[in-house]
Amino acid sequence: MKMIIAIIQDKDSNVLSNAFIEANIRATKLSSTGGFLRSGNTTFLVGVDDDRVDDVLSIIKKTSHARGQFMTPQVSMDASMDASASYPVEVQVGGATVFVLPIEQFHQF
Amino acid sequence: MKMIIAIIQDKDSNVLSNAFIEANIRATKLSSTGGFLRSGNTTFLVGVDDDRVDDVLSIIKKTSHARGQFMTPQVSMDASMDASASYPVEVQVGGATVFVLPIEQFHQF
Amino acid sequence: MKMIIAIIQDKDSNVLSNAFIEANIRATKLSSTGGFLRSGNTTFLVGVDDDRVDDVLSIIKKTSHARGQFMTPQVSMDASMDASASYPVEVQVGGATVFVLPIEQFHQF
Ligand code: NI
Ligand code: NI
Ligand code: NI
Repeated sequence: MKMIIAIIQDKDSNVLSNAFIEANIRATKLSSTGGFLRSGNTTFLVGVDDDRVDDVLSIIKKTSHARGQFMTPQVSMDASMDASASYPVEVQVGGATVFVLPIEQFHQF
Repeated sequence: MKMIIAIIQDKDSNVLSNAFIEANIRATKLSSTGGFLRSGNTTFLVGVDDDRVDDVLSIIKKTSHARGQFMTPQVSMDASMDASASYPVEVQVGGATVFVLPIEQFHQF
Repeated sequence: MKMIIAIIQDKDSNVLSNAFIEANIRATKLSSTGGFLRSGNTTFLVGVDDDRVDDVLSIIKKTSHARGQFMTPQVSMDASMDASASYPVEVQVGGATVFVLPIEQFHQF
């Protein structure tokens, strides 16, 4: 068995939880912050058999990878502001940091 | 040394904390959710010498194992409901998922 | 790579976060309690290359080690109390418990 520790953005957390449930993978969620003080991360702990590690990694990659997203910046109420300031800009969202650790014993009581 | 990670139900958390204190075992509690979206789990991190791993496992098993418990269902305020609906029913409570991981270094500063 | 798990007092948490940022080390913070029910601990997860483990340990030791601190006890409003009760006393603060675990795989998606 392996312990998979995955740190992802909160915004991807529900999608990842649901994907784990569909794949019958038990995951525990810890609320976390940081990585350079970026707040709002979620840390998942997953214990899986060796032959399911790649499945879990695929699910995390699919739901939580870094990607660009177009967002419309909040426009301030300053009347003198150029209207062009409200065009959408691309920002980076998502991203997952994943560690696979060895497990010596696994028990369910 | 080993790192023991134990995920148990919140309802068993105080009993387990107290059992660890009595046995002079230092544990750190992380608040967690899930495993199939069941909320209200607690994750314990315990660092112990190899020769105390079995003690820690026994304490977790004793305080937190899955067991049946009789509960009286909440009766709705629907006057037409059969009174028999309030008989106690057996539900499964507790349960612990436990991982033992190798540790390469341990420090106290 | 190694996974470093460090449990420190909340009061040292911001200083340690900032020291990690300055050293370009990514850390994830989990809120935690305990070790003998002492509340207000923070658990840091740090994934680092083998050749930076000692750097991370030095940073944790420097910012979070146990040390004496003089504190003035809260004086009760009991008018009969001896004024000497408000002299500063030395208390132990800080302290870090640190585990270094092996990692078999590391991914960023
Ligand atoms: Ni995509
Ligand atoms: Ni029992
Ligand atoms: Ni000092």
